[in-house]
Amino acid sequence: MRVADYIASFLISNGIRDIFMLTGNGAMYLNDAIAQSGIGFVCARNEAAAPMMAEAYAKFTGRLGAICVTSGPGSTNALPGLAEAWVDSDPIIVISGQAQVSHTSHNAKVPGLRTLGTAEIDIVPIVKPLTKYAAMISDPDSIRYHLEKAVYLATTERHGPVWLDIPMDVQYAIIDPETLPGYEPPPAKDYVLDIARDLNTVMDLLKNSKRPLLIGGHGIRQSRAVEKLRELVELAGIPIIFSRFAQDMMPHSHPLNFGQAGIKGSRYCASIMRSADLVISLGCRLAVQLVGHKFDAFDHAAKVIAVDIDPAELQKPGVRIDVPIHGDVGTFMEQLSGKLAQGEYSSWTEGVKDCQELREQHPMIQPDMQGNPMDLYYFMSRLDALSEENHVFVTDAGSNYYVGGQVYRFEKGQREITSGTFASMGLSIPLAIGCAVANKDIQVLAVTGDGSLELNIQELKTLSHYGLNVKLFVINNGGYVSMRNWQDGYFEGRRIDSAEETGVGTLNLEKIAAAFDLEYERIASYQEADDKIRKVVSHDRPVFVEVICDQNQKIVEPIKDLAFNVAHRQ
Amino acid sequence: MRVADYIASFLISNGIRDIFMLTGNGAMYLNDAIAQSGIGFVCARNEAAAPMMAEAYAKFTGRLGAICVTSGPGSTNALPGLAEAWVDSDPIIVISGQAQVSHTSHNAKVPGLRTLGTAEIDIVPIVKPLTKYAAMISDPDSIRYHLEKAVYLATTERHGPVWLDIPMDVQYAIIDPETLPGYEPPPAKDYVLDIARDLNTVMDLLKNSKRPLLIGGHGIRQSRAVEKLRELVELAGIPIIFSRFAQDMMPHSHPLNFGQAGIKGSRYCASIMRSADLVISLGCRLAVQLVGHKFDAFDHAAKVIAVDIDPAELQKPGVRIDVPIHGDVGTFMEQLSGKLAQGEYSSWTEGVKDCQELREQHPMIQPDMQGNPMDLYYFMSRLDALSEENHVFVTDAGSNYYVGGQVYRFEKGQREITSGTFASMGLSIPLAIGCAVANKDIQVLAVTGDGSLELNIQELKTLSHYGLNVKLFVINNGGYVSMRNWQDGYFEGRRIDSAEETGVGTLNLEKIAAAFDLEYERIASYQEADDKIRKVVSHDRPVFVEVICDQNQKIVEPIKDLAFNVAHRQ
Repeated sequence: MRVADYIASFLISNGIRDIFMLTGNGAMYLNDAIAQSGIGFVCARNEAAAPMMAEAYAKFTGRLGAICVTSGPGSTNALPGLAEAWVDSDPIIVISGQAQVSHTSHNAKVPGLRTLGTAEIDIVPIVKPLTKYAAMISDPDSIRYHLEKAVYLATTERHGPVWLDIPMDVQYAIIDPETLPGYEPPPAKDYVLDIARDLNTVMDLLKNSKRPLLIGGHGIRQSRAVEKLRELVELAGIPIIFSRFAQDMMPHSHPLNFGQAGIKGSRYCASIMRSADLVISLGCRLAVQLVGHKFDAFDHAAKVIAVDIDPAELQKPGVRIDVPIHGDVGTFMEQLSGKLAQGEYSSWTEGVKDCQELREQHPMIQPDMQGNPMDLYYFMSRLDALSEENHVFVTDAGSNYYVGGQVYRFEKGQREITSGTFASMGLSIPLAIGCAVANKDIQVLAVTGDGSLELNIQELKTLSHYGLNVKLFVINNGGYVSMRNWQDGYFEGRRIDSAEETGVGTLNLEKIAAAFDLEYERIASYQEADDKIRKVVSHDRPVFVEVICDQNQKIVEPIKDLAFNVAHRQ
Repeated sequence: MRVADYIASFLISNGIRDIFMLTGNGAMYLNDAIAQSGIGFVCARNEAAAPMMAEAYAKFTGRLGAICVTSGPGSTNALPGLAEAWVDSDPIIVISGQAQVSHTSHNAKVPGLRTLGTAEIDIVPIVKPLTKYAAMISDPDSIRYHLEKAVYLATTERHGPVWLDIPMDVQYAIIDPETLPGYEPPPAKDYVLDIARDLNTVMDLLKNSKRPLLIGGHGIRQSRAVEKLRELVELAGIPIIFSRFAQDMMPHSHPLNFGQAGIKGSRYCASIMRSADLVISLGCRLAVQLVGHKFDAFDHAAKVIAVDIDPAELQKPGVRIDVPIHGDVGTFMEQLSGKLAQGEYSSWTEGVKDCQELREQHPMIQPDMQGNPMDLYYFMSRLDALSEENHVFVTDAGSNYYVGGQVYRFEKGQREITSGTFASMGLSIPLAIGCAVANKDIQVLAVTGDGSLELNIQELKTLSHYGLNVKLFVINNGGYVSMRNWQDGYFEGRRIDSAEETGVGTLNLEKIAAAFDLEYERIASYQEADDKIRKVVSHDRPVFVEVICDQNQKIVEPIKDLAFNVAHRQ
């Protein structure tokens, strides 16, 4: 059996049903093995987008995502998506082609050698800072070991991408799968005892707290503990707020769920965060966008408990954690629920009532938001209102990212897939493709802007070619609204590359849709939003929907005055 | 003065007239400083393309290219182009925005921390393997030192990219330019004495050689020694062949110039290479694509002299160099010419005559190449024949890259700008933009394929927005011809992602041109090629020209039988 065929069958036996790729000479045996293995493959039109697709696949399914690229530029093209997977903790495996072993600078060990074989670069040191594991396979018989180790690391503890680089002569080398040495993973840590030790401290703090607050983060989903979170919240009766990444874990109508918090959170989140006297962070990295410039979204006297599987997040500067708990957040929640079920607590109904009143007083959608050109808040709230159980939301960078975080309510258990950490531009199309490939029964409601659209516009062809069930709403608001907003705020409105003067946002979107073979619809006013949304979701073909919105869109920034982002305002 | 303004004025005072960029929050002060400095700026529609544009700018002008990107994804998006600049030895400087110093994981020094501030990633360790110098600037007063050091390293010895990462609070920090410490470069190496020592060996070998052969590489241009090369060739009367990268250094009608050699070289190059008894490589890295799998494009008894500024190229495995000369190739040629001018040589007229006869017997363009669907050799030879002094050729990956290397003749001193090392897909549009920005008086004749086009298709908008004098010839041949060729050769014609089954090459190109606001022309047969070429070059507007070519295009591979690429053919 060839190594390339072994890799394909290994991926299949590890539950991978689809692989994202772009073919190439340096990966030719891998490409052929994939084609012959029966694994589904989706071909991106630039390698940069392939890891983004695999990320969405991993985020949506909870399973490993996979991509295959060729050597040299095929590999370096994939770096942008790899960086996304790294910061977003997405378990993906990248299999890259490489020049034959004797033509690799990796093996040449000549300091400073830039390249050796055909389209060859030593990709391992480049991807090392962006992966949990990266290796070039020089010995064909080590393939099982490296694959098993890579998959183990990608999907254990804090997830993340891994990369295996397969030289040409290793790709076609013949191996006997029966005799290959495997990887022996270390004994699984269960964290139960460690957490039990901290639990008394947690309970003491809880008992003495008058206004405790939970924060839910992405780690909960990675721990497969969304259900445990819901149990804990209901048992404890403690209000919960979420990071941008995690806000789809509970319906926002839940009496204890106060939605997304932070700089672009709900209108009322600042007061809730400020009034907490105890904060329990569950698998959340307490990013500056959430906790403020110097953790000042919270009262300085508030105690902070943080549970994280990644010790780096508990040690990093800028966070103020009184009780750092290194461990699995699912295990923690299970144990805490156990303690609470024993009745060793009372509920904090006063605090909850205050929060609920705040929420009622400060709804995200307000009557003056209706109007033309349409307000993005209005449009995205209609998208949310008209969505069903089988929908997945995808958002892109900029204003639609912020608004999605503020108006989506997840009442029917929908998921949101987005660039959680970076809020990168240009991800909607590849993320939507990844979701649609992962599950043929869902329909993707993806939003992007006329600025962000451009970055991976080539993947519109992937969308139309595969006929994926994606409705792509392209907000036509004249380019980079968010950038114009900071140019107004900091630079007296001087424009640089945020509007028509550099061409951004000036594409004729109807012609773009036609050029990439996509059905086109246009929503020109708020009055027609509902009907047009209903029309496009009524079938399963991809549609490109141009949505005319306000070019002067402002974003609600509830805690701007808490010095979040204003340190450099002079 | 703000650091951001200092950076902009430093770039201007270092001869940079244009900068390639995409704006972003993390680089806001840099963006504003650029806009206010009066430096020209060209905005790419994906950061990936910005370094490619700067590369072409550097290749074409011989000056430093510059780009500015924002933090996090803005920086990681730029990695594909950075890798190109690294392997192609292009002197470019990347200025990236970054989160404020206290929010950088670079300074946090917490092992394994993936990200800290808003859209923040520690870019320095990622770009280290792809740059000659990379640093994050934590101290505003160190900016002059780092800029001077970066520019010095980018443009000295073997050129290459450098990267400076500028945190937000450093961008807006106020400095006194008069008091900043500078960088003291090491004393320049002149290599004169070292080379003089080797020169006697070179002369002895030359005197004893019956069939010497020169190889010209990209290092000659980097040493600004193209004129010295011409002098040497004429003085010595020795035939010369070129790497793919360097073939535009002399007109191909020159009696001693035998054009491009190697796996996709001229039809007659194999015989010339095989018959040499002495090879003098001038600033050429002797890549496997040129010298063969185990250096077997040359006779095993042939002596090899190689001059290179990068010692790694003289030490790497796979090359067989009898006399490695570490030094500046311009200095070497000057000294060698000096020796030859003293009359200590005789010319090798017999060998040259043999080579010339070979060339006459094996022309690249043969009568049977005319026909419809048009042969790419025919089309590109017409493009060459109709070109003028003010033209610059740009080629993309795949068949047009190979054919360009075989039929372009540079009779009027034209330059060719291409992905010299990787032959990467998707570079034609950004490279063409970089050339057109560098010199408003030239006209770019850029060729791409309908497969390669897709990778940076977003930059068609940059082309039309800036109205650049670029004629983009898009070869419509049904996707990835080169990949279909290896699929036929190695995998019994099994198609994977090389033709319509995955959507590649199926774009309606006329609609694409319209969608990106480009004038469109179509060349449907060889009979209309000349008229259409003449028409589009007659004005200075950008034009998108669809060229219908043979889907079964075969590429001349003169030394296929020398085991170049067939090591893995089973």
